[in-house]
Amino acid sequence: MDLGISGRTAVLLGSTRGLGRACAESLAREGVNLVVNGRNAADVDETVGAIGATFGVHVQGVVGDSSTSTVQDALLVACPQPDIVLLNGQGPSPAVFADLTEQMWSDALRQALTGPLAFLQRVLPGMCERRFGRVVAISSAMVKSPNSAMSLSHGSRLGLTGVLKGVSKDVVKFNVTINQILPERFDTARQEQMAQVVMKVRGVTYEQARAEQVASIKAGRLGQASELGDAFAFLCSAQAGYISGQNLQMDGGSYEGVF
Amino acid sequence: MDLGISGRTAVLLGSTRGLGRACAESLAREGVNLVVNGRNAADVDETVGAIGATFGVHVQGVVGDSSTSTVQDALLVACPQPDIVLLNGQGPSPAVFADLTEQMWSDALRQALTGPLAFLQRVLPGMCERRFGRVVAISSAMVKSPNSAMSLSHGSRLGLTGVLKGVSKDVVKFNVTINQILPERFDTARQEQMAQVVMKVRGVTYEQARAEQVASIKAGRLGQASELGDAFAFLCSAQAGYISGQNLQMDGGSYEGVF
Amino acid sequence: MDLGISGRTAVLLGSTRGLGRACAESLAREGVNLVVNGRNAADVDETVGAIGATFGVHVQGVVGDSSTSTVQDALLVACPQPDIVLLNGQGPSPAVFADLTEQMWSDALRQALTGPLAFLQRVLPGMCERRFGRVVAISSAMVKSPNSAMSLSHGSRLGLTGVLKGVSKDVVKFNVTINQILPERFDTARQEQMAQVVMKVRGVTYEQARAEQVASIKAGRLGQASELGDAFAFLCSAQAGYISGQNLQMDGGSYEGVF
Amino acid sequence: MDLGISGRTAVLLGSTRGLGRACAESLAREGVNLVVNGRNAADVDETVGAIGATFGVHVQGVVGDSSTSTVQDALLVACPQPDIVLLNGQGPSPAVFADLTEQMWSDALRQALTGPLAFLQRVLPGMCERRFGRVVAISSAMVKSPNSAMSLSHGSRLGLTGVLKGVSKDVVKFNVTINQILPERFDTARQEQMAQVVMKVRGVTYEQARAEQVASIKAGRLGQASELGDAFAFLCSAQAGYISGQNLQMDGGSYEGVF
Repeated sequence: MDLGISGRTAVLLGSTRGLGRACAESLAREGVNLVVNGRNAADVDETVGAIGATFGVHVQGVVGDSSTSTVQDALLVACPQPDIVLLNGQGPSPAVFADLTEQMWSDALRQALTGPLAFLQRVLPGMCERRFGRVVAISSAMVKSPNSAMSLSHGSRLGLTGVLKGVSKDVVKFNVTINQILPERFDTARQEQMAQVVMKVRGVTYEQARAEQVASIKAGRLGQASELGDAFAFLCSAQAGYISGQNLQMDGGSYEGVF
Repeated sequence: MDLGISGRTAVLLGSTRGLGRACAESLAREGVNLVVNGRNAADVDETVGAIGATFGVHVQGVVGDSSTSTVQDALLVACPQPDIVLLNGQGPSPAVFADLTEQMWSDALRQALTGPLAFLQRVLPGMCERRFGRVVAISSAMVKSPNSAMSLSHGSRLGLTGVLKGVSKDVVKFNVTINQILPERFDTARQEQMAQVVMKVRGVTYEQARAEQVASIKAGRLGQASELGDAFAFLCSAQAGYISGQNLQMDGGSYEGVF
Repeated sequence: MDLGISGRTAVLLGSTRGLGRACAESLAREGVNLVVNGRNAADVDETVGAIGATFGVHVQGVVGDSSTSTVQDALLVACPQPDIVLLNGQGPSPAVFADLTEQMWSDALRQALTGPLAFLQRVLPGMCERRFGRVVAISSAMVKSPNSAMSLSHGSRLGLTGVLKGVSKDVVKFNVTINQILPERFDTARQEQMAQVVMKVRGVTYEQARAEQVASIKAGRLGQASELGDAFAFLCSAQAGYISGQNLQMDGGSYEGVF
Repeated sequence: MDLGISGRTAVLLGSTRGLGRACAESLAREGVNLVVNGRNAADVDETVGAIGATFGVHVQGVVGDSSTSTVQDALLVACPQPDIVLLNGQGPSPAVFADLTEQMWSDALRQALTGPLAFLQRVLPGMCERRFGRVVAISSAMVKSPNSAMSLSHGSRLGLTGVLKGVSKDVVKFNVTINQILPERFDTARQEQMAQVVMKVRGVTYEQARAEQVASIKAGRLGQASELGDAFAFLCSAQAGYISGQNLQMDGGSYEGVF
């Protein structure tokens, strides 16, 4: 399927590892030139090199925390007029609700709510003017089925979900779409870490911890990052312009609710 | 993007015109062999001929009402082991709630609920056994925002939505996914008919009737059938196996709700 | 709290046992005159006698299946101008999806979809004319989280949910509200039966079967029918006229989804 | 209806005017002793006096911004063990998405998200220990149908919605429920202000501005604060212990979505 975006440019926040990296690769495969971003300079360098070599597109890298204005400046210097934007970043860590502090909230909300929105404010006007824009945020399945240990995450991300939905209604008439992907349990470093946490807290083996992750997914397996990357690429395609304000769950069919 | 389904087979209910036809074309472009279906023999013949000639895949046609067991028999004779199934059909007509009769309900429920489910009962076991299946139903945006004039439609289709969701939870572990697309106002014959109705009922011109359709969509335009066809093809792809139980709205960003 | 409905009249479908009976008692306590209904004559007689004696309101009884036009005629002879209507009835039995037949669907849809709607068609015009109406349907928690064994139930009830929502938009301007209550695991005869089924199928003791029911509810207990009765009465109150089109879950906080 | 809460104690944030005040009155009518709160000392005094005189319950007042720890301290000195808590406060003002600043977000999130949660952290453990608690937040209809001009409001409030839902799952087993009411267009000072804004911005008359408010509600009228107060009181009742994690829309039936 020709996605009709060859030659377009994308700024991808948080795209050197895991799901974000897969998004970068799926876009590069379609001929999209990229600005990738991550906090670790070596990761950024490796990503720039590998994707450029493999897919032959133009790739730049910006190192740093994308929720800060300095890094956002650098991203827009590298690519002043992005056609495609990925809003992605490391999610807040689990924490007991009773232990949450003002500082933890402040950090989480900047990372997952106000930081991404500040970047969106900067790119939307140009997208509307140029009559093309594809914004996709990687959120979390938990925004539709919250549990208290992840309050920092869904507290911030549901806020983002609502704001993106409201804004999407204003810009879709300019062929600018805003959608979210809601992943659950992909086979990335994050699930490795989660397994390590479970091993320590509950004293189970690595194999047990991983088996429990698989058992929690109705599909009977974890998701592959490349699957999410391709779904992302489809939502960025020329022919996805009639799809906006959607929250696509990628959870191996696990969500219980009808909507 | 390679959807990984070249050489697969699909049975597509209601696929000679409009959205269903676009689904057939998008699959054929990916190298999927098809059984198409419609009530009108000439339409079926034309579809078989045109798609075969254009895309070079194997196309068979079955004429008749796909909610009947006779036609379902014929479809499964033509393709006993489909990998992909499209559940689609003409939607029930608008009607005032106070005027609905038992007969009208009985017809609508057979067309849009029990007929499709009977076909699903016949194809699911094989899909599960063969560890691959992609079922997509074309529903309606109205299942999420019902209005009383379309009670026959969303009364039947919400029932289908619920049953498909429940069943999807059982089969996703066999790499069989079940999703729905919820379209609103695509540029097909149906919107032409709707415009004719509005012209008669309200005495407006054709141009006014069409302009009102466009004005009701936040994207400021009607959807193109090929856009829906490509979204359908993506949901049928090999890499969409982690997406199940979803209701993807294709409505130009018009739905008001956050979820 | 004064619900402001003393002296009003209500027709309550399926109200001699369990949840429906509790609805009857909660309304009678508020001084509402009732027509109760059930399939068993002795139950109807007992209900009429007991409620009349306890609450001093006028109570009539109609025996029979409320989804038939004969019984609907009798209900409206007993009370031609009801202010309040309860749509309730025995839910369809569990069944394996693969085993569902046309006949099973036809029965379920009449009981849980078209039967109640036919009654609604008869009472709504008068409610609108008199500028007061409270319609409440007892649905099921499963309409929001379907599982395939209950396809007959949520297939029918989601249809009803959608139609009621659509119609509610038309009539709320006449001070006629339509809402649903979505119960899960109340301590009624139905959960007794469910326990018996589980005992047979899985060979567990009665105590185990009941304990599993309790364990499935986040509140750590089953609901009491009188709790649902009072929620129903509140939705029927004069001061609930600004609440319409709602689906109130009474499930001990068990639903996973945010909406 | 006897709500079974006479003699209980409640701390009501933001309860001297409008919807919060109505909540205070509905609880007082049921014999609940209150701590009321508002930013204006005269309002607090008047509320304490009027409610005490009218309903004969014990009423205390705490002046100040309830999102600050000082005021939260004072509220818990006045009532160290509340049975009932109302989370309510002035909503953030409308603003164009492009104009939102970090400071505006920081203020809105403290008022409508982290402030209320900090108070919840302090009262929940006692409620769980005492095996009774009713927490209700007054949110906004917009959390289910966001528009960009209210991003500060639903960005914060959707976050709160998610966190409350997650936490509700943990505490319902202790007979502690957490629910939200989602109001739209009640006849309070807020709609007066909104009308003034519309008059200035669009140059319409007061009558036109008010008429447009009414026209936006399917019920054909604004809500009365006392209606919301009574719904709040019902959610605080003894018999509402099986209802938790719900978002009850009070919008005159206006929401378009089925769920």
